[in-house]
Amino acid sequence: VDTTVAGLGEHALIDRIRSRLPTRPDVIVGPGDDAAVVAPPRGMLDVFTTDAQVEGVHFDLRFVPPRAIGHRALAVNLSDLAAMGAEPRVALLSLILPDRLEIAMVDGLVTGLLSLAAAHRVAIVGGNIARSPGPLVVDVTAVGAVRSRCVLTRRGARPGDDVFVTGTLGAATVGLQRLQRTHDAFPGSEDADARYLTPEPRVRAGLLLGRNRVASSCIDLSDGLADAVRQLATASHVGMVLDSTALPVAAAARAWHDRHGGDPVATAVRGGEDYELLFTVRANRRGRLRGVRQQLGDLPITRIGVVTRGTDLLIATREGTSPLPSGFEHFR
Amino acid sequence: VDTTVAGLGEHALIDRIRSRLPTRPDVIVGPGDDAAVVAPPRGMLDVFTTDAQVEGVHFDLRFVPPRAIGHRALAVNLSDLAAMGAEPRVALLSLILPDRLEIAMVDGLVTGLLSLAAAHRVAIVGGNIARSPGPLVVDVTAVGAVRSRCVLTRRGARPGDDVFVTGTLGAATVGLQRLQRTHDAFPGSEDADARYLTPEPRVRAGLLLGRNRVASSCIDLSDGLADAVRQLATASHVGMVLDSTALPVAAAARAWHDRHGGDPVATAVRGGEDYELLFTVRANRRGRLRGVRQQLGDLPITRIGVVTRGTDLLIATREGTSPLPSGFEHFR
Repeated sequence: VDTTVAGLGEHALIDRIRSRLPTRPDVIVGPGDDAAVVAPPRGMLDVFTTDAQVEGVHFDLRFVPPRAIGHRALAVNLSDLAAMGAEPRVALLSLILPDRLEIAMVDGLVTGLLSLAAAHRVAIVGGNIARSPGPLVVDVTAVGAVRSRCVLTRRGARPGDDVFVTGTLGAATVGLQRLQRTHDAFPGSEDADARYLTPEPRVRAGLLLGRNRVASSCIDLSDGLADAVRQLATASHVGMVLDSTALPVAAAARAWHDRHGGDPVATAVRGGEDYELLFTVRANRRGRLRGVRQQLGDLPITRIGVVTRGTDLLIATREGTSPLPSGFEHFR
Repeated sequence: VDTTVAGLGEHALIDRIRSRLPTRPDVIVGPGDDAAVVAPPRGMLDVFTTDAQVEGVHFDLRFVPPRAIGHRALAVNLSDLAAMGAEPRVALLSLILPDRLEIAMVDGLVTGLLSLAAAHRVAIVGGNIARSPGPLVVDVTAVGAVRSRCVLTRRGARPGDDVFVTGTLGAATVGLQRLQRTHDAFPGSEDADARYLTPEPRVRAGLLLGRNRVASSCIDLSDGLADAVRQLATASHVGMVLDSTALPVAAAARAWHDRHGGDPVATAVRGGEDYELLFTVRANRRGRLRGVRQQLGDLPITRIGVVTRGTDLLIATREGTSPLPSGFEHFR
């Protein structure tokens, strides 16, 4: 029996996926027509983002299970919507599949994606399947909605604003390294794996920061803190000074570096795959931030620096102040 | 000098593309932030579609120039919107690029895409660039708008409706075959090439068919007439009888088969890559169809068959009536 996607065929594979997609009242024409038709929420702006996960670039099939591939493919897009203060609505799934890919792999991928979609009430309203002569590619487009006065962008930071980050930093990078290399257990290693394999996009945090008009600017951390700081500062035409001693370094990152050497703070600054939010807050909005903190419960919100005039990006350590290292960049 | 995308780097490549994207008043946050923010038109429904072009599957770099790759990537999506009666608004461009791809190739691709986008007033509001360890992939998501009462779907055909198709059939397939194999010139060969390389999505036809409530169902012809007939009939729970002598076979397809043998009608029925619209019209809407025809000017609208009870899909030829052959399917 041929258990690959080539054996099943395109139409049967589409039917197989489509039959698993939940319906929703505002989806007027769902998957299966030339395009999807959806009723937009009144008085809101549309928010669009797209991000692809490529086998061999963004994930390795040897240690990333199918469910995690599907989860990550949607999570990275929901993280982008969160960074705009938008509420996710619908998503489209574009699969580019090698002929010899097992159907079970596609099933698992869809399971992971639908599980995260259900958690955020996102409807998968359409998509596309194409054959790949190379890697598996999972490309997702997500659509959200936001009120005009609640939009968060990268452009609003001003000198004197405080700089904050959600969650903890470095665990995802350590999880990836563990899965790639050692597979040894250490305190927090399961958490590190999960942070890499099934990151939780900070949808609620982004929404609350936008709705309560707390953040003056916001970006997500897909390619690491240093990269996000640079991009936000560039877009806002400001500088920043980070306090390395204030960074919320994940316990798992400390435990990893206790065992393997190296600097957990460097991992927190340069490591990618943490889908946290970096945002700035004006001094007169600190009270509102306290309210948002309470609503977010256990999610840490940590002040890690300050916005400055000029364009210098600096990090203060116990040894003194030095330029912020550069982040990860594709193609380099 | 390294003239590849790897030499340029991700951020510089994104800046290079972004600097070429026109702005539009309803685009509140354009490319360069975590996501795009766009003001939706009032009282309209959102229409979403996504379709990928994969090197070695949908196009061959040896004979498809970069501009055509970009054109096709957007055209196939605009064709899907047209089939829903939707007006295109914005699109997102997801590029998955081999390291050694020439920057000039990306420039050409973007030129082709932007040229078609400008013709249909589509704003490219965002996108993503990722590295590919395999083929070049151009994945586009297009967003359109349609009024609730003007939505066209595949589901509305009823027994007794007439079946129509826009344009002519078979030229794109012949153009592809010529580019793949012979490169010989014949009457209409330039038209055949153009029909394959730079198909014109029937956006205006779809809009007029929807706005004037002419079509009872509609689908586009990406994978050939036979495939489209099957999908539309299945969705509408009807049968169809096509008249092979009525099919608008492209002159270039006839000329090709005069030279190389084979049946131009078979090419018109089974050949893919014609981005025409197949639609059905109730008898009491024939008058309205005449009005749409006049507005469309030179674009042929040809009656090619009738919707029947049951599920049989038949084609009548001079030799008698036979089952409709099956269309192209990926993975088979």
